Amino acid sequence: MRAVGYRHQASLDHPQYLLDPQRSRDIQQLTAPQNPLNPQQFLDPQDQLNPEYLVDIELPDPSPGADDLLVRVEAVAVNPVDVKVRRRELPPPGGWRLLGWDAVGRVEALGQRAGGFSVGDRVWYAGALNRAGCNAELQLVDWRLVARAPQSLRPAEAAALPLTSLTAWELLFDRLRLSQGADAAGQVLLVVAGAGGVGSMLLQLARQLTNLTLVATASQPEGQAWARRCGAHQVIDHQLPLRPQLAALGIDAVQWVASLSHTDQHFDSLVDLLAPQGALALIDDPNPAAIDLLSLKRKSLSLHWELMFTRSLFQTADMAAQGAILQRVAELVDDNRLFSTCRQILGPINAANLTAAHLQLTGQLAGQLAGQSSIGKIVLEGWD
Amino acid sequence: MRAVGYRHQASLDHPQYLLDPQRSRDIQQLTAPQNPLNPQQFLDPQDQLNPEYLVDIELPDPSPGADDLLVRVEAVAVNPVDVKVRRRELPPPGGWRLLGWDAVGRVEALGQRAGGFSVGDRVWYAGALNRAGCNAELQLVDWRLVARAPQSLRPAEAAALPLTSLTAWELLFDRLRLSQGADAAGQVLLVVAGAGGVGSMLLQLARQLTNLTLVATASQPEGQAWARRCGAHQVIDHQLPLRPQLAALGIDAVQWVASLSHTDQHFDSLVDLLAPQGALALIDDPNPAAIDLLSLKRKSLSLHWELMFTRSLFQTADMAAQGAILQRVAELVDDNRLFSTCRQILGPINAANLTAAHLQLTGQLAGQLAGQSSIGKIVLEGWD
Repeated sequence: MRAVGYRHQASLDHPQYLLDPQRSRDIQQLTAPQNPLNPQQFLDPQDQLNPEYLVDIELPDPSPGADDLLVRVEAVAVNPVDVKVRRRELPPPGGWRLLGWDAVGRVEALGQRAGGFSVGDRVWYAGALNRAGCNAELQLVDWRLVARAPQSLRPAEAAALPLTSLTAWELLFDRLRLSQGADAAGQVLLVVAGAGGVGSMLLQLARQLTNLTLVATASQPEGQAWARRCGAHQVIDHQLPLRPQLAALGIDAVQWVASLSHTDQHFDSLVDLLAPQGALALIDDPNPAAIDLLSLKRKSLSLHWELMFTRSLFQTADMAAQGAILQRVAELVDDNRLFSTCRQILGPINAANLTAAHLQLTGQLAGQLAGQSSIGKIVLEGWD
Repeated sequence: MRAVGYRHQASLDHPQYLLDPQRSRDIQQLTAPQNPLNPQQFLDPQDQLNPEYLVDIELPDPSPGADDLLVRVEAVAVNPVDVKVRRRELPPPGGWRLLGWDAVGRVEALGQRAGGFSVGDRVWYAGALNRAGCNAELQLVDWRLVARAPQSLRPAEAAALPLTSLTAWELLFDRLRLSQGADAAGQVLLVVAGAGGVGSMLLQLARQLTNLTLVATASQPEGQAWARRCGAHQVIDHQLPLRPQLAALGIDAVQWVASLSHTDQHFDSLVDLLAPQGALALIDDPNPAAIDLLSLKRKSLSLHWELMFTRSLFQTADMAAQGAILQRVAELVDDNRLFSTCRQILGPINAANLTAAHLQLTGQLAGQLAGQSSIGKIVLEGWD
């Protein structure tokens, strides 16, 4: 099969810090989230992607294990996690690492325990961080992480959704344990970075499935308009102090916070804005020195991490919840209650286009650090 | 009315550190929890209680506000929070600070909005940190924080329960949002410091109202026996590594942790033991440097603070939940499903006995730091 990957060639191409013994230790632990970098390190200007680092390769076709689907990949999206893993994880000498955790494709074969699917089904999924990603013609994925793709979207449009929808859904309904339904009238959910990838699905899901008042933050007019389109009732600018902007909306406290970016920069003001007994969920890698944990005590606040890869990484008993979430999201898409956040289709899946996508994403991330909003997802579709 | 209090006399009697500008700033903020001390500071050996610091005084009788009950206090318990406030909060010059946040007494008068009670009712409550405590013959307390005391206990036995029962209940059912009922079969709640004040009510409540498997930690044989009596299915020693002891019980992960003491010492091993998507609740004041917040991300864990004074401090819309909890606890006591954790009745309520109680509590806290278990509550009953 064709694939796009990178290999162990640290002396030549790999970012310098991979040679640092401290970082090498991290890298030996397969997964990025265990020792998250802070965004400044993540965006080290020295750490440029060598245009020849991602390579078009030919690998043997994989065979499904008992719980696997073998999927012929049709479209993939690129996420910040791709950049993180590329920068932090060195494959063993001689081996290749395949990135990509957002895929749409057709089932080509099934393992003996892989229930509920047939050959030819079009499916979508994010997959598992500790397995080969979807930047390949053929990919193995545990059937419990998979659902049938929505029928009303073309593969590229659909490929933008799995990872962010799963993250947003788990954050809202599994971590914060918000109820779906109409019992949250008068409660406010503040979504920091509401125009970003996760933010734009989180706003859509919360708007469709709860009656929370949704206040998003976004800094640029374009991001603010996008957040409104995704479902925010109100949008404020996270580059300005939050409290006065909320006060102008008649809001003096929020019951829920989804802090999707820059948690360390906003933490003190989020704690200040949270109502007693409120909850803050986060997905990023804040600088611990900026988080005053004890400040949560006075109001009996709680802090909830969401990592979309937890279920697959630990093979939790409830990992089929991810398949169920994706099925529900597909239904909501086909009911025209959710729309795709696909922003740009860069072309077919190959090393040149993936390199361009990584560079564009890195630029977006750097822009976010400078307070800009990034909008929508970058997708690649088909093979040359 | 008679009362026991302390006044602003820092030059003579107050702990030296209250004169430190850094700490003075803290003290101006009425309440202890906002800037918690770490236990080492809290137990500064220089910080001895001057035996003349708590004083028998005569104060004007208070009059109830619209939401107040005026209560004639019959019995009080002494809690770590009394010691903390005494050490951290300096009343304004000329004023007295009354401690005490565990009381049983009879309603003497009612404010116009104070519903559901009659003069003569025997009530129990913890009260509010930012008002005068119960170390007084007469005390004002917001009716929403109060319930009728259990009929099957004498006042001293009952006075041991409100603060710890409220803390334990809120931690289990409002913070961790455990369900009451039988849907937690196979799930494990690890209670660190299960023999302490909060621990012994938390074990009782969890044993009575859930079907969680309860594993408590306690270090001394006496504390271990006490934790079992309170409802622990299993008891392990928190002075030894936790994982091998749990493994010996056939437990390789716990879904829930109530970390009631020494959270900073145990944090890394608790995170290690927590199952993916698990939750840790805490009530103490850990040293932030010992808490690796990012270590929670990989498993999508959550961290929940419980402070029993949050509802009253912020006058939350649901503050009547505390009255409702105490009513339910009283019913469970009268049904013989909970027993009093009163361990020692030191005598009538006066400065000498309260001083003795504070010293004994300080000794217990120091013992806890050295790994000993403290068992049961110290109570004072009646007036000379």
